[in-house]
Amino acid sequence: MTGLLEQLRAAVGAANVLADGDLAGYEQDWRKRMRGKALAVVRPGSTEEVAAVVRACAAAGAPIVPQGGNTGMVVGGVPDTSGREVVLSLQRMSAIRALDPDNLTLTAEAGCILQSVQEAAAEAGLLFPLSLAAEGSCTIGGNLATNAGGTQVLRYGNTRELCLGLEVVTADGQVWDGLSGLRKDNTGYDLRQLFIGSEGTLGIITAATLKLYPQPAATLTAWAAVPSLECAVELLGLAHRRLGAGLTGFEVMGQFALGLVARHFPQQRVPFQAESPFGVLLENADHESEAHARAGFEGLLEAAMEAGCVTDAVVAENLAQAAQLWHVRESIPLAQAQEGLNIKHDISLPVSRIPEFCRETDALLRREIPGVRLVNFGHLGDGNLHYNVQCPEGSDGAAFLRQWEDRVNTLVYDSVARCGGSISAEHGIGALKVDSLPKYKSPQALAMMRAVKRALDPQNLLNPGRVIRG
Amino acid sequence: MTGLLEQLRAAVGAANVLADGDLAGYEQDWRKRMRGKALAVVRPGSTEEVAAVVRACAAAGAPIVPQGGNTGMVVGGVPDTSGREVVLSLQRMSAIRALDPDNLTLTAEAGCILQSVQEAAAEAGLLFPLSLAAEGSCTIGGNLATNAGGTQVLRYGNTRELCLGLEVVTADGQVWDGLSGLRKDNTGYDLRQLFIGSEGTLGIITAATLKLYPQPAATLTAWAAVPSLECAVELLGLAHRRLGAGLTGFEVMGQFALGLVARHFPQQRVPFQAESPFGVLLENADHESEAHARAGFEGLLEAAMEAGCVTDAVVAENLAQAAQLWHVRESIPLAQAQEGLNIKHDISLPVSRIPEFCRETDALLRREIPGVRLVNFGHLGDGNLHYNVQCPEGSDGAAFLRQWEDRVNTLVYDSVARCGGSISAEHGIGALKVDSLPKYKSPQALAMMRAVKRALDPQNLLNPGRVIRG
Repeated sequence: MTGLLEQLRAAVGAANVLADGDLAGYEQDWRKRMRGKALAVVRPGSTEEVAAVVRACAAAGAPIVPQGGNTGMVVGGVPDTSGREVVLSLQRMSAIRALDPDNLTLTAEAGCILQSVQEAAAEAGLLFPLSLAAEGSCTIGGNLATNAGGTQVLRYGNTRELCLGLEVVTADGQVWDGLSGLRKDNTGYDLRQLFIGSEGTLGIITAATLKLYPQPAATLTAWAAVPSLECAVELLGLAHRRLGAGLTGFEVMGQFALGLVARHFPQQRVPFQAESPFGVLLENADHESEAHARAGFEGLLEAAMEAGCVTDAVVAENLAQAAQLWHVRESIPLAQAQEGLNIKHDISLPVSRIPEFCRETDALLRREIPGVRLVNFGHLGDGNLHYNVQCPEGSDGAAFLRQWEDRVNTLVYDSVARCGGSISAEHGIGALKVDSLPKYKSPQALAMMRAVKRALDPQNLLNPGRVIRG
Repeated sequence: MTGLLEQLRAAVGAANVLADGDLAGYEQDWRKRMRGKALAVVRPGSTEEVAAVVRACAAAGAPIVPQGGNTGMVVGGVPDTSGREVVLSLQRMSAIRALDPDNLTLTAEAGCILQSVQEAAAEAGLLFPLSLAAEGSCTIGGNLATNAGGTQVLRYGNTRELCLGLEVVTADGQVWDGLSGLRKDNTGYDLRQLFIGSEGTLGIITAATLKLYPQPAATLTAWAAVPSLECAVELLGLAHRRLGAGLTGFEVMGQFALGLVARHFPQQRVPFQAESPFGVLLENADHESEAHARAGFEGLLEAAMEAGCVTDAVVAENLAQAAQLWHVRESIPLAQAQEGLNIKHDISLPVSRIPEFCRETDALLRREIPGVRLVNFGHLGDGNLHYNVQCPEGSDGAAFLRQWEDRVNTLVYDSVARCGGSISAEHGIGALKVDSLPKYKSPQALAMMRAVKRALDPQNLLNPGRVIRG
């Protein structure tokens, strides 16, 4: 292994091979569920350096853990405790290589912070629509490797849909230049799709060409009180029909989740919390004008009130009010944490089956765990719920987790499977769910995944033991 | 082989195994470039029957050519002349299995005609936006296998972007049920992407869950005269900014291409043909109203005239006028055929490089072939050109093709490669371009494609020799 460290130093410079000192920032995952131990952290500065690192590791048989901003939710980007794995950090590769306004594309290196991509697009008067809580520290390479979701999926799709081309270092240390700004290209298998969402297990994304969009002329936010999830689904349908592609956000939040915000952040004003079983946050991005956006929103909400699926509603008057409404939504995870430990899920379902899923699963959990509290919120427009389970009022969160975590996961995931859903909507599998996946994925799918993994990484060198066991 | 035919009859019923008589409809490709000879044409009626056919063929080592509506452009869905290949026609699997309006999805079997999918969506008040010339006879399975493009890609993407889940029979005759109506699912590799666009070489698509959209309230068509391709690109940018997602079509047509329509179909009125180097057909689909669509269009065209990128324009007053404008666009291929044989290309480029590509390639061809005529038209909004080459006025088309086809292809494709484009935008590779591909695709990409092919079809049983040689 000394030989390997020397080769890594030769490849990227001694200053960019970290083997001593405090490496917690690279070895511990963001949610602090896992603290691993790396053989070394290597920080290449170019695609060729990444390739040289991979070749050195391949020759030494050293596993590689690619890492971006280390903000993942499923322990997919930190080393295990063996001390054998090399963390390959892409953070130094942070250049924006090109911006082509006529083609509506931007080419960025993998280590570019998401917010920097957004800002580069905005400077050119354009929009890169991917947006999520970690945008100030996550990298575009990590977003691609995990096919990140976020708040604009309803209109613009997941990260997968925002990528036109990739540059990838393969498991044998070659560079595939698949950077393309083409919107149509039917010359063989769409290899980029294999790497997107594969969490660094098939190749190392070093750069990407991304889609840009015109910036909307105005973006408005509204909050609607809805009496049930059935009504929320009805409101979503109405919003699709009346706002078309203008509908960029549709978040649902249960009364208990909103109550936690009201309890722990009393300075925040939570609209209609006391009287309404659910709140819905809607966003309307308009290419024409603010007045047009407002008229569209008001028409929608009036129609929804007439149809009985909305009992009350408010449209933010200005950007500050809109930010306040979004802040309520974004405070739910923090309010939950203040309330105590809880069991988190990131699931997706067909939109049409969400009411049935919640009714049945709520009842199941309440029967099994009297007094259990359900913190239910999420991106209803994408069928994505963060369906979280909090211990009964006044009981000990840690004890609750020890006793119930596995059982609750099984109940929720079995229920998801019955409704045709997914146990990981936007967070991925990583190391956290790798042993749950075989229960919920078909044997045929797992066999194909294994065949693809063996085909592209025959040594099982890239992020081994994440997503799928070799 | 008698044993195989008996097994196929046992699998699908004797009436659905065609081995004698006139099989031209299955053996000859749509553009009549190839007439093959099948061992048999098998017409399974269910997914289980498809799986049984594949198992029987695999046991006998008989290659399988999956076929939908047989409207492909690149000889990818007809048997070769060996008499050894089994054509597996999906036409009997034509059911629409489900339509979920709240989830905005429709599940159809592979043999369902595209137009039937469109109609089923329309009956539910929804839109399935894939639309192309062959929609009355092509199948959704073929559309998926070839990742078909068409006229609405600008807004809704290629077929790939319209698919949420697949059911596939794998090369070993197993059924993978990946039919999902989920908009977010990060549980491992996105296998559906491998099958979409792989032209039947990795598995046989038997059903798919497709995205639906709200129907627009009004769709308007306009025609603009533009002085150059640079101006067309500028108009496209303006249209993106002013119409947002309302911009659903942006077709460019060169003066000579439009002149052929005027010459061969004198009853058609071709706007501004005599005075303008290029025509642009724009479509604006509005979720609000016809009046709003018209105001948007008029505002755009006024701004474009002020900016100098449009010299004259007309907005269709009614559906009949809109249909007439589209009819001019759609008549170009027929007018070309009337004019005589020609060399066709289906290429894509970054939108920003289209003017440069055309300037350089036009000059190159005119220098090499004095008097050559260029029929240039296509989906500019997607960077997709049908850049076709017609013999000099008065010369013999067949002789021209014999003398020039290979040379012209080389000149055009080399030029495409220099500009970062693709030699097949929406038609695929099939057997027609399989030997051109290695020249224009990187060795790394080809190696990965071969590795994936071996992983999923180790016997090289599925559509062998198409897309990539084993």
